[in-house]
Amino acid sequence: MSTQLHNELKKEFQLERMILFSDAVFAIAITLLVIEIKIPEIHENISDRALLQGLAHLIPKFIGFIVSFLLIGMYWTVHHRMFGFVVGYTRRLLWLNIFFLFFIALMPFATGFYSEYAGPELFRQQLKVPMTFYVLNIFGAGIFNYIMWVYIANPKYKLIDASTDPQTVRLAKTRSIAVPFVFLLMLPVAYIFNVIFAVYIPMLIPLVMKVMTRRYAGKTKSVAEH
Amino acid sequence: MSTQLHNELKKEFQLERMILFSDAVFAIAITLLVIEIKIPEIHENISDRALLQGLAHLIPKFIGFIVSFLLIGMYWTVHHRMFGFVVGYTRRLLWLNIFFLFFIALMPFATGFYSEYAGPELFRQQLKVPMTFYVLNIFGAGIFNYIMWVYIANPKYKLIDASTDPQTVRLAKTRSIAVPFVFLLMLPVAYIFNVIFAVYIPMLIPLVMKVMTRRYAGKTKSVAEH
Amino acid sequence: MSTQLHNELKKEFQLERMILFSDAVFAIAITLLVIEIKIPEIHENISDRALLQGLAHLIPKFIGFIVSFLLIGMYWTVHHRMFGFVVGYTRRLLWLNIFFLFFIALMPFATGFYSEYAGPELFRQQLKVPMTFYVLNIFGAGIFNYIMWVYIANPKYKLIDASTDPQTVRLAKTRSIAVPFVFLLMLPVAYIFNVIFAVYIPMLIPLVMKVMTRRYAGKTKSVAEH
Amino acid sequence: MSTQLHNELKKEFQLERMILFSDAVFAIAITLLVIEIKIPEIHENISDRALLQGLAHLIPKFIGFIVSFLLIGMYWTVHHRMFGFVVGYTRRLLWLNIFFLFFIALMPFATGFYSEYAGPELFRQQLKVPMTFYVLNIFGAGIFNYIMWVYIANPKYKLIDASTDPQTVRLAKTRSIAVPFVFLLMLPVAYIFNVIFAVYIPMLIPLVMKVMTRRYAGKTKSVAEH
Repeated sequence: MSTQLHNELKKEFQLERMILFSDAVFAIAITLLVIEIKIPEIHENISDRALLQGLAHLIPKFIGFIVSFLLIGMYWTVHHRMFGFVVGYTRRLLWLNIFFLFFIALMPFATGFYSEYAGPELFRQQLKVPMTFYVLNIFGAGIFNYIMWVYIANPKYKLIDASTDPQTVRLAKTRSIAVPFVFLLMLPVAYIFNVIFAVYIPMLIPLVMKVMTRRYAGKTKSVAEH
Repeated sequence: MSTQLHNELKKEFQLERMILFSDAVFAIAITLLVIEIKIPEIHENISDRALLQGLAHLIPKFIGFIVSFLLIGMYWTVHHRMFGFVVGYTRRLLWLNIFFLFFIALMPFATGFYSEYAGPELFRQQLKVPMTFYVLNIFGAGIFNYIMWVYIANPKYKLIDASTDPQTVRLAKTRSIAVPFVFLLMLPVAYIFNVIFAVYIPMLIPLVMKVMTRRYAGKTKSVAEH
Repeated sequence: MSTQLHNELKKEFQLERMILFSDAVFAIAITLLVIEIKIPEIHENISDRALLQGLAHLIPKFIGFIVSFLLIGMYWTVHHRMFGFVVGYTRRLLWLNIFFLFFIALMPFATGFYSEYAGPELFRQQLKVPMTFYVLNIFGAGIFNYIMWVYIANPKYKLIDASTDPQTVRLAKTRSIAVPFVFLLMLPVAYIFNVIFAVYIPMLIPLVMKVMTRRYAGKTKSVAEH
Repeated sequence: MSTQLHNELKKEFQLERMILFSDAVFAIAITLLVIEIKIPEIHENISDRALLQGLAHLIPKFIGFIVSFLLIGMYWTVHHRMFGFVVGYTRRLLWLNIFFLFFIALMPFATGFYSEYAGPELFRQQLKVPMTFYVLNIFGAGIFNYIMWVYIANPKYKLIDASTDPQTVRLAKTRSIAVPFVFLLMLPVAYIFNVIFAVYIPMLIPLVMKVMTRRYAGKTKSVAEH
């Protein structure tokens, strides 16, 4: 193997290493979510009815698990897409990525906290603290994700392939910030109107993503046509 | 390195990244299983006899650990085999894989829940709830695994090497769904007959796998002969 | 990239995937060990003296952590060395590796169990159950490790490079089984003589490894000279 | 693929494997940190005010989480930089790396211990034990990190590319040991003066790193100019 090829491969491996380290953090955070769901403990009169009731109490936990699993999954797909463009790295990119992963690693706690107090008392007491924590966690990840997009898209650093269409990057960037903003919407709704409306806002996300994908497909198509 | 080779390697790395992310989730889920087995706590009259009794109480937990370890191991080998054919990826494949991994990540909870209530009360009370949860978890993984097979085998998406023998894929597909169906069988047996019979159904799996492997070997051999 | 090169790379990636999956299990097991060490909880009269006493009570836990960390580390280096020879894989190798990883994943439990009852009562009550569990866990890993060596060294399966010196493999094989056997020695010593002697047997390991390395170096050198 | 290229790739993969194993340990340790932060449990009179108070009690835990997250992140970037130079491995390097990872794996415990007793009692009782444990853990990682630098920089082992500028390595080496020494400073300050000053010493780190980076940039630039 020539020295030059060797050096190129080494440089690529250094980038891949950063990516695979991120994937490990994603994978651990996404799998640790389930640890917050404690097995229902029934010590007397164990019966199917009691166990079903035990599971029923866990419904907020399960919903939290599912939503956060899909969210971390979504952030992973965004990260996957982003680094599909990236061909180099800088010390600053390593650190931006670590800050981003900080919010991913915090997700199991935020999910546990929000879903712990998502029983009937959530609406009765209009609890806003756990929701705020959860939303800020998601938004923090979104912000750092966006900063990474801005950073890698900066031609000064030569981090993305020169042949990449700027329009594609711009759309991917916008797309990545959409979901965090939908979550952020929960806060004014909860503080001004009612927590009950805020809770259901994430249900809009599949719709938002569908619209984004369609617009995205449309624009990149029209770009490709030129 | 030529730009074209570089791009090809990048595309391959993007696929590999998805695979290694899945492996990390598999590895964490399979290793977290053991966390559900709590060390026997004896505070007074610590003796070998008391510790042995403590271990004896954990037997359902150990069986759950072993069965789930082998199951996740099996799903991993199926995933390994599947992606041995795959040469590309789409956004949809990424998401199908994330949905599949959801059920893998849920396994430590389902295993803990089932084996927590697998003591004498399982038969005495004919407990069906934890078993149902466990079976549905395994089956969910099986279903998404199957959907992934169907998806990648669809020539429209060009996800598998064109030279792959369709017969091989068809057999691998059938094979992957067999074990989840054996588990599904536990439910009618438990609900109609008796939980005690249902519990022992997984023991049929090595037999089923042996038969499948033999048939598989036979068919691929006869395919190869043509 | 030519189709042939592509296929070769794919096959290598499939092998690498199995190796990296194993590494993830190793990494998780080795890092989970620390979870068994609970932070000393002092609620009243918190002082440096009380905290030092709290740490002192954890000494058996720390020793267990260190020993098991080094053991899993050693199994990892053995696995690393083994797969330095391997150039292919079979379904059976995948499964042997999964069985081997089973014992690695069990290590945090076994370590926690042994070190939980390694206080003064270990000698007073001559506790043999936790030690037996721990030793059998280590030995189980050793046995499957050895079976893997035997399997890959079998020329029938063509799993190792044909140019590999059989002597090298034979020595590596012997070397890998030495440490588990030193641990196994703990059982007759504990059951026939006294638990107190058994506990200190692992201290022989650095010595055994040193001797093995020297003999190994000597033999491979004399082999290389021929 | 030629046999020679194949062997070279295999050797590189063996090195990469060691690196990716380290990354998995880094990733798990960094993600497990959050497990030490327990969700505030309020059973009666659940209200936003009570939840905010619950969070307020967790502030030392959050600070510990953030500091340790950044520390492990920093050790990861140092490891990443170090292995950007490394082109080979020896058995001794594998073990030095395992010893280094030992201290990384211990971080969640040390962080939990330090931040558990970092409430008002820290200053009132002048608690030095948890801080000492934490500092020694960080310093242990720093020492082994430094030993690895010394080892790989030794031309005898031919572990780094011959064309690497020794000045670059020397500076990277110095740089890696700076942060552990700032932490070590906490101990004399705490024991001789007052714990309260010691606690805030880590705030100097961004400054130290900035200075180091500037000097580093200056020297490597002047080196490049010659």
